[in-house]
Amino acid sequence: MSVQVVLSSNNECGLSPRVGVAIGEQILDLTVIAILFEKYVPELKNPSNVFSQPSLNSFMSLGKPIWQATRRFLQNILSHDNPELRDNEELRQKAFVAQQLANLHLPAQIGDYTDFYASKEHAINVGTMFRGKDNALMQNWVYLPVGYHGRSSSIVVSGTDIVRPCGQILLDKNQPPIFGPSVKLDFELEMAFFIGSGNKLGVRIPIDQANDHIFGLVLMNDWSARDIQAWEYVPLGPFLGKNFGTTISPWVVTLDALDPFLVNGPIQNPAPLSYLKDNVPSAYDIHLEVKMKPNNSDSFKTLTKSNLKYMYWSLKQQLAHHTINGCNTRPGDLCGTGTISGPTENSRGSLLEITWNGQNEVDGIKRKFIEDGDEIVLTGYCQGEGYLVGFGECSGKILPAFTIG
Amino acid sequence: MSVQVVLSSNNECGLSPRVGVAIGEQILDLTVIAILFEKYVPELKNPSNVFSQPSLNSFMSLGKPIWQATRRFLQNILSHDNPELRDNEELRQKAFVAQQLANLHLPAQIGDYTDFYASKEHAINVGTMFRGKDNALMQNWVYLPVGYHGRSSSIVVSGTDIVRPCGQILLDKNQPPIFGPSVKLDFELEMAFFIGSGNKLGVRIPIDQANDHIFGLVLMNDWSARDIQAWEYVPLGPFLGKNFGTTISPWVVTLDALDPFLVNGPIQNPAPLSYLKDNVPSAYDIHLEVKMKPNNSDSFKTLTKSNLKYMYWSLKQQLAHHTINGCNTRPGDLCGTGTISGPTENSRGSLLEITWNGQNEVDGIKRKFIEDGDEIVLTGYCQGEGYLVGFGECSGKILPAFTIG
Repeated sequence: MSVQVVLSSNNECGLSPRVGVAIGEQILDLTVIAILFEKYVPELKNPSNVFSQPSLNSFMSLGKPIWQATRRFLQNILSHDNPELRDNEELRQKAFVAQQLANLHLPAQIGDYTDFYASKEHAINVGTMFRGKDNALMQNWVYLPVGYHGRSSSIVVSGTDIVRPCGQILLDKNQPPIFGPSVKLDFELEMAFFIGSGNKLGVRIPIDQANDHIFGLVLMNDWSARDIQAWEYVPLGPFLGKNFGTTISPWVVTLDALDPFLVNGPIQNPAPLSYLKDNVPSAYDIHLEVKMKPNNSDSFKTLTKSNLKYMYWSLKQQLAHHTINGCNTRPGDLCGTGTISGPTENSRGSLLEITWNGQNEVDGIKRKFIEDGDEIVLTGYCQGEGYLVGFGECSGKILPAFTIG
Repeated sequence: MSVQVVLSSNNECGLSPRVGVAIGEQILDLTVIAILFEKYVPELKNPSNVFSQPSLNSFMSLGKPIWQATRRFLQNILSHDNPELRDNEELRQKAFVAQQLANLHLPAQIGDYTDFYASKEHAINVGTMFRGKDNALMQNWVYLPVGYHGRSSSIVVSGTDIVRPCGQILLDKNQPPIFGPSVKLDFELEMAFFIGSGNKLGVRIPIDQANDHIFGLVLMNDWSARDIQAWEYVPLGPFLGKNFGTTISPWVVTLDALDPFLVNGPIQNPAPLSYLKDNVPSAYDIHLEVKMKPNNSDSFKTLTKSNLKYMYWSLKQQLAHHTINGCNTRPGDLCGTGTISGPTENSRGSLLEITWNGQNEVDGIKRKFIEDGDEIVLTGYCQGEGYLVGFGECSGKILPAFTIG
């Protein structure tokens, strides 16, 4: 089930944002069939109100049993055996909107946004570049999913242009930094999970209950200005090198819909501490791809292909770790995985890694980093037997920096 | 003007949270005098609605001219020359509530929370402890106000108990980390400013307009688990060592009310880059004090006395830097200053510095760090000619860690 907040615009009178579900090329407007929810999913109180919210937060906060009941009901109502919608032409006309006629919004009001650093290949690539092969991984990395807090105000939905950031850049270690537009603008191929039901301050979420709190997944591009980041990030972490914009895909694929794609993740050695131990498959086989449409081209060039299953620390481990100190989470909070790099050169999840910090150009296009007018598109899907679960697109184009007047 | 969200509880029928202003030992309930706002501050539209919100966000978003008009009106209505409130006994009875009968709430719904690291003395103390005197300050520190994103969900109002966090702790570099309650629990003496009117994504706030966006200041205790933090924070910054709880004082003192206490801050050498240059006094002379009531005592022991004026990077510089890359801010966002340490040993802003990472005990009480049941109270005030501007209290008591069952 892919859930979204949609502003339907298929006629002149603009409709307000509301909750919709992706059904092929169509969107099912849940406000229109709220009356059916009242009849068949009575445990979902006041569906008309929940689905007419401009964000998913209200629905997210209802908890996993309600998300599951909603999914079962939708599968039922959409099956060919069920006449309720099938034989009601008028209701169908109202309830379905073509995706291309709808405006897709940020799916939730995001309270807190956390970003992890959970791909071992990514951490090793970056560590090797900046500290050499022997010191690539920090000592703590194999014991805990390293994470940090990011900026929620600047998370935008796919399709939003991003202005190239300006900032301090150190060109020469023996000189003061200069000020100017970033010249090492990068993407990061990530996925992110939304918190559905949260936890109270002081009360942790055990790893075997973590999935009850995770609502679903989106694609995420954690735009990064490598030059700004390199100068500012010691000792307290990334700040202006990241918080000028983060793009997510509009459709949230609920965790239940991803159950068929659970696989074993990488072997974890050393064994995790007990609060991070997990004895069931917790990685997801999700194919990921990043393409660029350069500013001087009409066609897309594939930059990398990766897979969420390569990620070392699972989503459950990330959430269990996040709350082990009693940190509370709320419906709509977002947790990014960090860059998802794979084991091969053509599965690296950022230009930093692909061009090895600008030492090389991307094959076939003259790019070390992202230029003004370039567009970056992330896509993802799960391959089922005879069907796909798609994550849609996570796209963004870079606009030139504003200069100080 | 100290503005707050208040739940008046001076009678049996509980009132909903609303906006109030501190007048001595009393609180003026602005919802009760909304009708006077309609008459005298017509530019403030729908005051009844704005002041009956459960947070200040709505009022904050109205912008500086409205905050100033509100302040002028309140000064007027409270002056002895003005009969409107003075001679209306019935209205006065309704409008004033004793502070001790009111419940004070978190003053705003905080979207994003940022914490800076703007005290040079603090940065040098911490740097000296962990990297030695010669490498105490990182190269970037004197060029930019180092900052990072923190957790907004766990920001609580003064008086809220804090549960001691558990987490991974590295006791021996040659062994795996252990798991357990933090044994180096600390406070950090900070202040924080609330964003009033925000800025759009991609559009910076110039330093000479920064004060138009800052609504006001509170006291802040950035509780820190030094042992958890030390192990986790490389390379992406503090996370679980901080996000288990952050306490702020309930009353927001508006920036205008602090104008009389503007002073020159420390000399900045090297000269800041042009976007951080500021040619007017931008530091505030605010006296700060931290006391502890140990778990086995009925009396408070002063731990430190400091002053906001010691801070190297001004609030304006912090906000100009925060948005120089186009990062957007929203009404209710909170920015902490970082620990405010002064130039002397008895003005150090954390136990880490006071006990030099546990090497010494605090004089007179057997404390290297905070123990269960200890209470920490921050206070602050400005000394005017014949009057004080008080910041109230920022207090919290530590509860024992939950153990995993």
